[in-house]
Order: sequence, then C-alpha cells, then structure tokens
Amino acid sequence: MAVDLSYNPEVLDLVDRTRAFIDDVVLPLENEFAGDIEAAGGDDLRRSLNAQAKELGIFAPHAPIEFGGLGLDMSDRSPVFTAAGRSTFGPVALHLGAPDEGNVHMLAHVASPEQKDRYLEPLAKGEIRSAFAMTEPAPGAGADPNALRTHAVRAPGGWRINGVKRFITGADGAGMWIIMARTKGEPGDRGGATMFLAPGDTEGISVDRHVRTYDRGMLGGHCEVTFTDVFVPDEDVLGEVDEGYRYAQVRLGPARMTHVMRWMGIAERAHDIALDYVSTREGFGGKLGDLGMIQQMVADNEIDLAASRALLTRACYELDRGEHASDSTSIAKTFGAEAFSRILDRCIQMCGGLGVSEDLPLARLANEVRPFRIYDGPSEVHRWALAKRAVGRARKQKEAGVRHG
Amino acid sequence: MAVDLSYNPEVLDLVDRTRAFIDDVVLPLENEFAGDIEAAGGDDLRRSLNAQAKELGIFAPHAPIEFGGLGLDMSDRSPVFTAAGRSTFGPVALHLGAPDEGNVHMLAHVASPEQKDRYLEPLAKGEIRSAFAMTEPAPGAGADPNALRTHAVRAPGGWRINGVKRFITGADGAGMWIIMARTKGEPGDRGGATMFLAPGDTEGISVDRHVRTYDRGMLGGHCEVTFTDVFVPDEDVLGEVDEGYRYAQVRLGPARMTHVMRWMGIAERAHDIALDYVSTREGFGGKLGDLGMIQQMVADNEIDLAASRALLTRACYELDRGEHASDSTSIAKTFGAEAFSRILDRCIQMCGGLGVSEDLPLARLANEVRPFRIYDGPSEVHRWALAKRAVGRARKQKEAGVRHG
Amino acid sequence: MAVDLSYNPEVLDLVDRTRAFIDDVVLPLENEFAGDIEAAGGDDLRRSLNAQAKELGIFAPHAPIEFGGLGLDMSDRSPVFTAAGRSTFGPVALHLGAPDEGNVHMLAHVASPEQKDRYLEPLAKGEIRSAFAMTEPAPGAGADPNALRTHAVRAPGGWRINGVKRFITGADGAGMWIIMARTKGEPGDRGGATMFLAPGDTEGISVDRHVRTYDRGMLGGHCEVTFTDVFVPDEDVLGEVDEGYRYAQVRLGPARMTHVMRWMGIAERAHDIALDYVSTREGFGGKLGDLGMIQQMVADNEIDLAASRALLTRACYELDRGEHASDSTSIAKTFGAEAFSRILDRCIQMCGGLGVSEDLPLARLANEVRPFRIYDGPSEVHRWALAKRAVGRARKQKEAGVRHG
Amino acid sequence: MAVDLSYNPEVLDLVDRTRAFIDDVVLPLENEFAGDIEAAGGDDLRRSLNAQAKELGIFAPHAPIEFGGLGLDMSDRSPVFTAAGRSTFGPVALHLGAPDEGNVHMLAHVASPEQKDRYLEPLAKGEIRSAFAMTEPAPGAGADPNALRTHAVRAPGGWRINGVKRFITGADGAGMWIIMARTKGEPGDRGGATMFLAPGDTEGISVDRHVRTYDRGMLGGHCEVTFTDVFVPDEDVLGEVDEGYRYAQVRLGPARMTHVMRWMGIAERAHDIALDYVSTREGFGGKLGDLGMIQQMVADNEIDLAASRALLTRACYELDRGEHASDSTSIAKTFGAEAFSRILDRCIQMCGGLGVSEDLPLARLANEVRPFRIYDGPSEVHRWALAKRAVGRARKQKEAGVRHG
Repeated sequence: MAVDLSYNPEVLDLVDRTRAFIDDVVLPLENEFAGDIEAAGGDDLRRSLNAQAKELGIFAPHAPIEFGGLGLDMSDRSPVFTAAGRSTFGPVALHLGAPDEGNVHMLAHVASPEQKDRYLEPLAKGEIRSAFAMTEPAPGAGADPNALRTHAVRAPGGWRINGVKRFITGADGAGMWIIMARTKGEPGDRGGATMFLAPGDTEGISVDRHVRTYDRGMLGGHCEVTFTDVFVPDEDVLGEVDEGYRYAQVRLGPARMTHVMRWMGIAERAHDIALDYVSTREGFGGKLGDLGMIQQMVADNEIDLAASRALLTRACYELDRGEHASDSTSIAKTFGAEAFSRILDRCIQMCGGLGVSEDLPLARLANEVRPFRIYDGPSEVHRWALAKRAVGRARKQKEAGVRHG
Repeated sequence: MAVDLSYNPEVLDLVDRTRAFIDDVVLPLENEFAGDIEAAGGDDLRRSLNAQAKELGIFAPHAPIEFGGLGLDMSDRSPVFTAAGRSTFGPVALHLGAPDEGNVHMLAHVASPEQKDRYLEPLAKGEIRSAFAMTEPAPGAGADPNALRTHAVRAPGGWRINGVKRFITGADGAGMWIIMARTKGEPGDRGGATMFLAPGDTEGISVDRHVRTYDRGMLGGHCEVTFTDVFVPDEDVLGEVDEGYRYAQVRLGPARMTHVMRWMGIAERAHDIALDYVSTREGFGGKLGDLGMIQQMVADNEIDLAASRALLTRACYELDRGEHASDSTSIAKTFGAEAFSRILDRCIQMCGGLGVSEDLPLARLANEVRPFRIYDGPSEVHRWALAKRAVGRARKQKEAGVRHG
Repeated sequence: MAVDLSYNPEVLDLVDRTRAFIDDVVLPLENEFAGDIEAAGGDDLRRSLNAQAKELGIFAPHAPIEFGGLGLDMSDRSPVFTAAGRSTFGPVALHLGAPDEGNVHMLAHVASPEQKDRYLEPLAKGEIRSAFAMTEPAPGAGADPNALRTHAVRAPGGWRINGVKRFITGADGAGMWIIMARTKGEPGDRGGATMFLAPGDTEGISVDRHVRTYDRGMLGGHCEVTFTDVFVPDEDVLGEVDEGYRYAQVRLGPARMTHVMRWMGIAERAHDIALDYVSTREGFGGKLGDLGMIQQMVADNEIDLAASRALLTRACYELDRGEHASDSTSIAKTFGAEAFSRILDRCIQMCGGLGVSEDLPLARLANEVRPFRIYDGPSEVHRWALAKRAVGRARKQKEAGVRHG
Repeated sequence: MAVDLSYNPEVLDLVDRTRAFIDDVVLPLENEFAGDIEAAGGDDLRRSLNAQAKELGIFAPHAPIEFGGLGLDMSDRSPVFTAAGRSTFGPVALHLGAPDEGNVHMLAHVASPEQKDRYLEPLAKGEIRSAFAMTEPAPGAGADPNALRTHAVRAPGGWRINGVKRFITGADGAGMWIIMARTKGEPGDRGGATMFLAPGDTEGISVDRHVRTYDRGMLGGHCEVTFTDVFVPDEDVLGEVDEGYRYAQVRLGPARMTHVMRWMGIAERAHDIALDYVSTREGFGGKLGDLGMIQQMVADNEIDLAASRALLTRACYELDRGEHASDSTSIAKTFGAEAFSRILDRCIQMCGGLGVSEDLPLARLANEVRPFRIYDGPSEVHRWALAKRAVGRARKQKEAGVRHG
C-alpha cells in the first residue's frame, strides 16, 4: 500500500502536549478577556506564554531546529497548528501565528546567512515580532498584487522606499519588517517587485493607525503604514532584486495552509461546544441533538471538517514534495475558509439564543473566522485563478487534439 | 515525512491503460447508444468487452489474483475505477460495477472454500453476473435495514425463504444470488438476518418487473423480485446464521467507496466536456470561459472534485487498514454524491442550450448521477448516522467531564 | 388599504374549472404516455383537447376575446396558467404554451389589422401552431441577441431572408412563423433587427432536425431550421423595419412570466406528490413526514413556492400597468426557475428510490424543469443584466452626490 | 384588474420624510457611536430623537391615532418601517422598535379601556419603554413556548408571580411589563398561560444582568429577570385568564413582520453601501462592479431583497384582512432573516478588506442581522411548524381521497 495518512508517534505526542497547554493555560485566558489579546496583555502576555511553551518543548514547531524550533514539515505542522488554533490566543502563545510564522518560513528559505543571524534568529526565537508589508490602499496592491505602488529607488549603498501600506498585520510593535516595493515598471505591470528587510526602528517607517476589524486575536493590529524615504542598505535586500513576487510565492502557499490549520482549530472547538450543548439540552420533547434538523447541522459540520482536513493534507503533501501546489493550496484555503464560516454559523444556530450571546464564545469566534474568506486572497480571487488555469489547460488540450466523449 | 499520497508506477500504468481502453473502445459505444446498455447489446456486449479487457490485462482490478483479477486494495482501486467510470459502460466493460464488484469483495472475505469455488470463481471471472437481494418495498427494508421482512425458516437440510424485494440491481439474468432474509425476530428488530447463496436458476425466484429509473448504465435492471419457498441448503448459508448485518457491513463500506470512484469518473468527464466547450465558445465579447460567472462554476467544479477525491482517499486508507471507517465512508459517499450532482448541474448550465440537448451527453450523465444521492443510503440516512455517532461521543465526553472552552 | 392581492370570483372559478379539466382529463393522458406528447398523439391530441377545452369555456384564457380567448391580463393569467401547468400536457391542451401564447400576445400588440386577420386569428383559435425563430447556433444569436446573423435583404416588393436557426420550439408542423432577421449592421452590433411573418408552407424554410432535449412536453420539437432565400412581402413585416428588438421586448417580459406560471404548476404538483408520500409512508419508527430532515425539505418547498408566487405577482402587476418590468421579470424568472429545480430535487429525495423510478412522475418532471434555468435567458444572463442596471444606478447616484451611511 | 401593489401618496410621502430624518439626523449619530445605542446616550438620546420625530409628524406610525400615532395598517407600515430601519437607531428614534411596537399593537387589540389609559397611552406616546417577559432559561420556555415554568397563583385581589426569565429585551429601564405566567397545568402542557401587566417599579421584579449579544441597537438590553412574589391585581390581568397563548399569537404575527420591515432597512442600506463601493472601485483591469463574480453577488442581493419584500407584502395583506397568516408570516420571517444574512455576507465580501473593517459599518450591521435567524423563533422552529401544517393538510387530503398525478 502506497497511500499513507498516518503521523509518527512523536508528532502525535506533540499534538497532545500542545492541546493540553491550550486547554489548561491558554483558553482560560482567552475566555477571561473575551478574545481580545491586547486587553489580555499584548506583548507581555506573549512573552509569558512563549516562555511556558519553551519550557514544555512545544514552542515554534515550524521554526528551524538551529533557531530553537522543532523543524516540522508542512504535513506534520498540520495537526499541531490545529491544536494550537483552538484558542485564538494559541498562535501567539506558541509563536506560530501570522505573519511571524510565514516570515520565518520565507527567511529560512531565502535569507542570506548574515540576514538569518540578524533577522531570522531573533524572530524565530520570539525575541521580536515582525510585519510583512505588501497590501496597499486603493488603487494599490490589494487582491491584485500587480497594482503595487510603493516603490524603491537606487540610493548610494542601497535603496530609498516610499509608499503607503494598509492592513499590515502586526505592524504596531514589529521588531522587523519585510517590505515589498516596486523596483521596476509601473503599477499594473507584472513583476518588478523586490523584498527589503528593515529593523523595527528604521527611520521613515510610520504606523499611522489601526484599522479595526472583526478579529481580535492578532497582536500589533492591522495597520496603515507610511514609508517616507526609508533607507535599506544593499545587504538587506532579501534575495534578488526584482524577484519579490517569486519569493512571495514561496511564502504564500505554506502561509496559506498554516492559516487553514489554525482556523480549523477554531472550527473544531466551535463544533465541540455546539455538540456539547445539543447533546444534553432538552427541548421539543427530547434532546436537541436527536432532532433531525439539528442532526443535519451536526453532520454537515462533520463533513465540512473532514473535507477541509483532507484538502489540507493533500496541499501539505504537495508542498513538502517541493511542488508549486497553486491549485491545491487555493482549493484548501477557499474551501476551508468557507467551510469554517458555515460551521460557525451552524454552531450558533444550534445553540439558539445562547449562540448569539457572550455566554458562549461562538459569536466572537464567528467574528474571528469571517475575515478568512477575504484575508490571504478573497475566495473570488482564488476561484478566478483556479478557473484561469483549468480553462488554460483545456485550451491546450483542445489544440493538442484531445477529445472528451 | 509520514504522509504519502503517491501511487506506485504499476498502478499509474494501469490507470493509463484503463483510460485508453475507455476512450478508444468503450466511450464510442456508449455514445452511439446514448448510454443505454441494454440497447447496446446487454450481456453480449458485456462478454465482448470483458474479453478485450482480459486481453489488455485490465480486467477486474479488484478481484483476487487467484481468480483472474489484479488484487488491488481499496487505495489502488481508486484511480483505476475512476478511469473506468468515465464511461457509464466502463464498469460493465471491466467487470467492476455494482453489484458484482461488491459481491466479489464480500465473498472473498466471508465465503467458505467450497462457496468460493462454486460462486466466487465464475463471478470473479465474469462468467456470470450476480444480484444482492436486500431492499424491499414499503413497509420492508429500505433505507432502514432493520425493517427487513423477507424471512427464512428451517427446513430439512437447509432453509425456505419467502418474501418480496425491490430495486434489486442486476436481478434479470443474474447467475447467482445473495439473499438477505430474517432468521430471527420481527420486522423492526435489530439484527437477526442471514445471507444465503443461490444459483440463478433456483426454483421459486421470480423476477417480476424492472423498475425503470433515471440511470441506464447497469445491466439486468433494478427489479422487483418474489421469493416463494426458495430452498437453500445449509452449505449455501454465507458465514454464520443471524450474522447477515455484520457481513453487510463488510460489503457496504468498500462497495460504497467503489461507487464513489465510478461516479467520480462521470463527474470528471462532464467537467472536461464543459471545459472544452467554454474554453473555445465565443459570447458576450470573449470566450465564455473567461467570464466571471463561468469561472466561478469552473472553480467550484475543481473544488468539488478535489474534495471528493481527498475524502475518498481518506476512507480507502482506513478501509485498507482494516478500520470500520463508518464515518469516513459515509462522509465520502454523501459529499461525493452531492458534489457530483452539483458538478453535472454546473456543466449543463455552462453549456447552455447544448447542455440540455442530446448533442452533448451531459443531460443523460446528469440522469445517471442523480440517483446516487439515494442509492446506497440516501444522504439523509448518512447524515443521521453521522450525527448520531457525533452526538453520542459528545455525551460520553460530557459524562467523562471533558470541558470545551 | 391600498394593497390588494385578491382575485375576483370569475377568475377563481376559472381556476377551479381549469384544474378539474387537468385532473380529470389531461393528467391521465400524460401519465399514460410518460409525458411524451408526440407519443400521446401530437397535433391530433392537441386538437382533441382544444375542442374539449373550448366546450368547457377554458380555452386560451390569454387570447383576445374577439378571437375566441378570455382576454385575461397578466395578473389574472397567473393562477389559471399555473393550474394548467400542473400537467406537462396542460399548456398544449389549453393552447397557452410556448411559443404560441407569446406569439399571440405580441401579435395582439403589434400586428396590423390585416396581419391579425391572416395570422393572429387562426393562431389564437388553435387552428394552427406557430414558431418564433430567433436563436441561432454559435456564433450567432444565443443568450446574446446582438450576435444575430440571419439577415434579410431588400427584394422587389419585400425581403429575402437567409440564415440558420437553432432551438426553434414548435418548428416542426408550425402553421406560421415569426422570423427575426438582421436588416442593418453586422453581427455583434446593437439593434438593426426586423420581424417577419410567414405562413408555414413558405418556400425556402427547411426544418432540418429536432434537437432532442430533456423536456418532452412541447409540440413540434426544438429544431434546427435553415432559411434559404425565403421571400417575405412588405405587408408581412411585423411592425417597423429595424425595430425587431423592441418588439422582442414586448413579447419577452410577458412570455417569461407565463413560463414561470406554467412551471409553477409542475412544481406545485411535484410538491403535492411528495407530501402525499411522506405524510403516510412509514420509516425510522414513524411517518417520514414527521422526521426533521424531511420537514426541512417540505418547509423549503413551501418557502420556495411562496416566494416564486410573490415575485410573479409583482412582475405581472408591473406588466399590467404598462411598465417595462425588466428587473421584476428577470428576478421572477431567475428565482422561479432555480426554485422549481430545487423543489423537484427535494421531492425526488423525499421519495427515495421511488423518486428516481418511473413509478412516480417526479424524475421526468425534473427533466422538464431543468432546462428552465437555460431557456428564455440563462440565469447568468439575467443576473448579469440585473447587476448591470443596479451598478449603473449606483454610479449615477454617486455622481449625483448621494451618500450611503 | 384586482391585484394592486401601489401605496397611496400619503404613505409614500411619509416614507420620504422618514428616510430624510434617518439620513440627516439618525445615521450620523449611529455612525459616530459605531451603532452602540447605550454609548450614544440611551434613553436620553431616545427622548431627544422622539421629540424631533414628533415635530416632523413621523413618530410612531403604527400607534393608534388617539394616542398620538399615525394609525397605519400593516401594509402601509411596511415601507415606512423599512425606511426607519436603515439605521439601527431608527426604530428607537421613531419609537417603532421591539418590544414596544409589538406591545402597543397587542394592547390596542386586547387591553381594557382602563388598561389602555394606564399603560397603552404613555407607552404609545413614548413616555415610557416596555418589556415583554416570555422566554426563560433552560429548561423553561424558549423556542418551545409550552415549556413555560414561571407561574402565577391566586392571591387575595389578584395573583402572585414567581419565576425566572431570560433574553427579555428592554427590561433594564422598562416603565411597564407584560408578564407571561402559567396559571394552569405543568411545564410541557399546552395552554394555561395568562398575561399580566405591571408598572416598571413593581416590587419583586429584579433585572439581574444583561446577556450581551451580537446586536447593539436595542435599548435596555437582553436581560435575565427574576420575579419574586410579584403581586398583580385582578384589574391588571390582560384579557382572559388562561388565554395568554392566544394573545401572544395576536402579538406574534404582526411583531414578526415589523421585525422583517426593520431588518430589511439594514439589508437595503448594506446593499447600497456595497454597490457604492463596487461601482467605482478599480481592480483587475476595470471596475469591480463589472466583474462577473461581483455581478453575481449584486444580482443575488437584488433577488433576495425583492423576494423578501414580496413575501412581506403577502403576509401584511393577510394580517390586514384579519387572517391568521401563520404560514405567510413564518415564511416571510424565515426567508427574510436568512436573506438578510446572505446579503450582509455578500456586501462584506464585495468590499474585501474594507468590508471586515470598521471603516465601513458592514461588519457591525452583519452582527446586528445575524441574531434575526434566532430571535422571534429560530428558522428551524418556523420550518418545523410550516412542515407540520403542510403534512397535516396532505394527510387530510389523502383521507378525503384526493389524488395527485
């Protein structure tokens, strides 16, 4: 038998220990502060939880072993990140949240040895947080990355960057930046972007305001940022000049899948809460969980969770084999984000009045989950990309004379 | 890396050869006869195609090697059956259709050596076809198997069976029967069923009529059958008396998954036909396949196919490990059957007027696919079973004091 | 109280008499011939049923009173056509089916007195059937009418028409034609079409083949037709030259709504059949109709029917007031066609194995209903038109300085 | 023509004036305080806005004219309440929100002249707010009203009430109470409830806590309330003893429909905001509003709004005619609440990152709308009731020998 879907015992043990830490330590804190991580202590809380996680040997499971992580590949990350994601504070607690985790992943693949020492090491170890400055206010780079307007021009010994960014997660308090700026062509042109590294206190970087959103579990806000004549020396160019979009792809697929892993944790937790409720709550002459319409919601949740998990497994497998995985990651992300919204919605409905109250965390978890259908590429953009590739393949087949009966 | 989703080269080669046979030989026949297998020749056609498939070494990939098959496990069957399923004649052509394939599977697991010689060997080799007589007209066993009314009573040296069955696929012309009859308790009681084997020409078996249905690709109809004092000697009891439901489970999970494999073939073919159309057809100032609403349908098909495949992979993996796989097979069947209906519906819509015409096979393929949401357990019954188990687990967890934050 | 949704007693009485005729006379015939109207007698059947309907005073409720009809406006047609539509033979039986009914409507509005005598009178009285030749094979006029390629050129005393049409309902055996041909501009240009009238035996009109489709209830097929130098004298130009698209609009809105009325009849009937089944069939320890998942399907059918009816009422009201009703007819058609598909699908699912068998008419009624999402403008084209207008209004509001909080 | 869907000019004028007040006065306040009505001033704000509304002659359009209202019937209320509902502060501003509006409606129908003077007059004029104490924490009356546990026992000259209520909207600060208590039978029995009136400062009424929910636009919270030996004199029994459920029905249908009217206002506003955005925002080489997937969302919003409106019109018409309207109000409520959720969800998706941010009000409006699928009967309970009646009718028809072809 070739197909194998098992995890080795070390991973399963790590999952158990992660889950225990989440249940015993992190969830109580999240619930006490109704999921508002800034209110719960912000970076102070982060440092405290990180220290405990290190003690338990469950810190940063994705980070390179040489920098204090556990070095898991994508497949093995999957159940661990999901266990961590059950709490909206979990990703911060284990230092596996966005954008840090994706930045660690990309730096490990692209950064020079010196850049790794200077930026990756403190980031991987949780000494600092980071920001990834790509998206911009209209008419700049949003769902369409080619619209990039922030630009970098040659200056003696490096580059000068100017531009405005929006929805930069973790910007407020970031200890390091990865900045995407145009070094060639005009807004709308394909390609021509470069990635730049910069310390958090670099002159010319201004975090102007937090854009308040539905979700409350990420540190450092989703911010508007202005870059005014930000100077980056040549040695802090990440990879090659003009190759920024290619590196973004390196980051994108895996970061998209770790998003799905974490969100899956929220969905599983919500499903457990709702099951807990309907399995014992009386109504209409029996237990709610024995009523057909409730059973339908329960079953649809089970199906949605199983399908999300199965698609995630496929995408991680492809990424681990070094494949591009554009289709499988788009599919897992799109299906997952939509499934998790459906699941949260059903969980709320199953719990009735309690479901929309703060007596259960479901309403705020639904608010955490809703933006996932927009973050990291709206569902529409993923569908557009999937269709474009599928139609393109069909055209080539037709030109090659392939016939379909 | 533990997770592995690859197939070994022999399987991939078998898939290619199966696909070539389907494309070159089987599809043209199916299209010529608009998918009506009886009109295309019925059992004569079957024998002719089987002979060609044997020649090519692609016949009965699931059957035990000792009886002329290729002995594939569930995981490896998956891509092969899907390739065969592209044509609605494919399952008959390769002798891997319902109910024969499931009967072969069950006999290989449960039959005595003598029963294997007498029944399994000719069935596996395609010398005969078979029927599995379980479902009954109301108020007998339908979606609810416990309602079983056909009963067998002790007779000297064996049993006498009386009862009426309905929707017995392949009954007309079956060379052997597996008959499910109650040997204990009353209709509505759990358990108490036994499986009996009988040759096709057994006295007292009467095939009364074909119940015409949407689908046209199965040989021998979906029939109403009366058993009148049918005598079965003790040596033709399959397995243990009163254990029929347990053996039905042995048959059920795998048979359900091979259904999904075959149907997936239809869905993939329909998607290819629609892609072929929209990738070149002009309209509204461009190619249809570049319009957003069409792209959405294309992408949703891609997502539905990927999710069905991924759920099937999971269920086959569990079955191959000897697990019960009740949840994963119910999920893969329910999701798959619904996804394939959605896919066919979108394909028709993408092709507009052509889609509902007989100029394309989509309309009749949709008619083949529609019953899958009812055959082998309606979606509602699977959802009910899934929910029952999930709610039951939640109750046990609650009793054990598990808390969900 | 201004809002009034009541029908006057004469209309209600007509509904009752129509329903009785359908139940007593028409449905038995339809069921005997499994919905295949050609097999049931074709035009002979039509003439016989029409005679009976005239006798009963329920024939052609929409046709002008002067030509033997009942002269109902759109609002009053609604419940009558729905009652007739319960049988797929009903529209033919009462002479209120497509395309005749729409052609009568348009001729009554646009034709000259002479044209009315020559064409409208025999058509309204059911002496002949008619065809409306608009849609063409790719790359001609399909969902996009501006692609019109059939053209008419000036000839002494009239016009000569050449071109190919496809999906021309009722073409085989039509006693008169309304032909849409380009008299100005090139395929792709807006406007420039003219409508021409022609007797059924006009030289140069060739009905080449029937395009077989899902549905079986319309007489004269959905045909491919070639016009070769068809001569139409000036007096048979319908309305003004180059104004064909404008008259098509006159026909389109009402014809679209009468479609919805008739299809609603099918959906109501299917719902009644399924209710009849689940209200008495036993299973899972009770009546099926008392199970939650079945109740959900029943309720969703009730909701879909009520919404379709309410949207139809709104559109008819606007049409009767002489409004353009582009939005309300597109909405009622799109929602209705999709709702009726959902309803048929649920009815089949509620009836399980019987639902996909020919023991109930549900499977073939589903096949009648499926094409409605494509005929008379695919749902995607209606959505596109709705959005275009809505976005256009929003742009104008924005330019006018309207702000939305 | 019998069917008439027009409003008379006075109503249309009232709609315009209401809309102007909302746009100019109320919306700016709502936006300033992000929809939190308590933060915006609570009852002080209410009194100030009410005074302005009285000045403009648009206050309490539903209240009896003799008590300062405009005396509109349900049909005429519909467009006026919808205009008011565009702002989540609108219902409070015009004194037409829940539960006051429904209480005014019921008192106008059921109260004695003395009760009208004492309770209805100050309530109708906005001098006080009110509460309707029906729902209870588990295992009491929730979605299933027969589970009622709060009970009233005879005391000299009146009754003594004991019990606990939950989700009592407007309880904190209510100037009068309508209390539903059991006067006969046991929890689970049908019937046996009585309604009692009580001033806000009645001894023994304790508002224990606010249950925080998704929505922020209702004054006085959704509260938990304890009644401890609350004394109500005989003259404050509303209507007849033991007839409480019947009066609840008088209140329920209309209150449900005014809910839909108000929510429709939110949905229309959200749709306008999203249209405003996509009609001008650039992306992917054009305006977002010209992309097919966006057009699909726009069109689906238009369809959902039209269907909700049409179903509301039907239900109001039946209520105004004095019909029970159980089906039509359940359908309009269920469809509407679900449609408004879909609409808000699409609006957010159309606006991308902005949609989930507080830069637009969409995210918080979605949070206002989500509970509507639970408040006033969860969708599941309405579907259950609809199906029960439909299946019951089918059974009766079957018994009467009606056959469906």
